Amino acid sequence: MHNGVISNSVINRLPRYYRFLGELKSLGMTRISSRELSERMGLTASQIRQDLNCFGGFGQQGYGYNIELLQSEIAKILGIDTKKTAILIGVGNLGKALTLHINFESKGFHLVGLFDSKESLVGQVIKNLPIRSVHDLDEFCRENRPQTAILCIPKDVAKGVTEQLIMLGIKGFWNFSHYDLRLENRDVVVENVHLGDSLMTLSYRLTNSNE
Amino acid sequence: MHNGVISNSVINRLPRYYRFLGELKSLGMTRISSRELSERMGLTASQIRQDLNCFGGFGQQGYGYNIELLQSEIAKILGIDTKKTAILIGVGNLGKALTLHINFESKGFHLVGLFDSKESLVGQVIKNLPIRSVHDLDEFCRENRPQTAILCIPKDVAKGVTEQLIMLGIKGFWNFSHYDLRLENRDVVVENVHLGDSLMTLSYRLTNSNE
Repeated sequence: MHNGVISNSVINRLPRYYRFLGELKSLGMTRISSRELSERMGLTASQIRQDLNCFGGFGQQGYGYNIELLQSEIAKILGIDTKKTAILIGVGNLGKALTLHINFESKGFHLVGLFDSKESLVGQVIKNLPIRSVHDLDEFCRENRPQTAILCIPKDVAKGVTEQLIMLGIKGFWNFSHYDLRLENRDVVVENVHLGDSLMTLSYRLTNSNE
Repeated sequence: MHNGVISNSVINRLPRYYRFLGELKSLGMTRISSRELSERMGLTASQIRQDLNCFGGFGQQGYGYNIELLQSEIAKILGIDTKKTAILIGVGNLGKALTLHINFESKGFHLVGLFDSKESLVGQVIKNLPIRSVHDLDEFCRENRPQTAILCIPKDVAKGVTEQLIMLGIKGFWNFSHYDLRLENRDVVVENVHLGDSLMTLSYRLTNSNE
C-alpha cells in the first residue's frame, strides 16, 4: 500500500506509532483524529499527517484514523506480521535480561537459540530454550537457518563472530556489543544499540537544564 | 566554549563522537583529519565539520583535529566530566543487567542506590550496593539527595513512582519501563529507552532489504 522510498526519520517513528495505537486499542478506542494523536504523542498534527501520508493516508477528513486498520498497516510495513527466526549469542546478564524482558514475537521475531562460550552456562534453560555451546553454532545454523543474530558478546570477539555468522547465512544483527558494526554493501542489516549513548544524552540534558 | 543553541540531532551524535575519539586515542593516535574521521564514522566530512563548528571548531586547516583536546571538550559539553548521583528502581533481570553492564562513571553518573519492591531481593548486594526496599526510598532520597533515577519497573507503577521521585527531588529519568514518560514543563529531563522499537526497526530493514 505504501509508495516510494520512506525516509529514515519516518521509519524510526513507526515503532512509536505502532505502540501508541496499540495503547489506544487497549483503551477500547476505534478512531482518533490526527490532532488528538499528535497531543498524545508530542508531535505536531501536520507531522503525523505527513508521516502517515507516506503509506497512502488512512485518515478521512473529519473522521480521523481507524486505529485498528492503521496499526495493522504499520505492522505490515514494519514486517512484524511475519516472524523472522533469531539466535542470541552471549547469555551473560544483558543477554539473559533481553531473552526474558523482550517480547520478540510481538516485534516480528521468533527466538530459536541461545549460545554462550562459557561451559558453565551450557545446558541451562531460559524461556524453554537450552543454552548451547558456541561450538555448536555452525551445525545449528546449517540445520535451522536462523535469519537474525542478537549479539551480547565482548567487543574483542564481535567482529570475528559476526563474520562467522554472515558465512552461516545471518542477514540481520541486533548488536549490543560495545562495537559499531558496519557492514555496508554486505547484504546484511544492522541495528547497533549503545545504551551508554542514551545515558550520555541524559547527562547533557541534565547539565544544560541546570544552567 | 560552545556558542548558542545546539540542535537535537547534533546532541544525539555527540556520544558517538566521544566513543570514536576514545577508540582512536586507545590506538595511540593524536590527530585526525575530518575526512578520516568521517570515513571511520560513516558520516560526510562536511557533516563532521559542521557539527564540530557548533563548539567553536577544533580543527586547523591541514592539521586535522587534536583527538585528546576534542574528546575532552565533548566530555565537558556532555557534562560527563562531573558526576551526577543516580538510583536504580527495579532490580529484576534488566535492572540487574544495567547495574552490572553499564559503566556509569564514564558516562557522567555515580550509582548510589538500588531499590526493589520484592522483599526476597532486599539485602542482596550487586556491585557493592545493597538492594533496598522501595519503602526506604523517601528516607534515602532525603538523606542522600540523588539527582537521577533509572526506572526498570512495570508500566502500571511507572507513573506513580515517577511522581514520588519528582517530589523527592529527582531531576532526570533514564526510563526503561514500557511507558513513555512525558514531563514537559516540569523542570525534569527524560530519556525513554524502548529496546523493542529498535528491534522493530531491524524488522523493517530485514523485510525491505529482501524485496
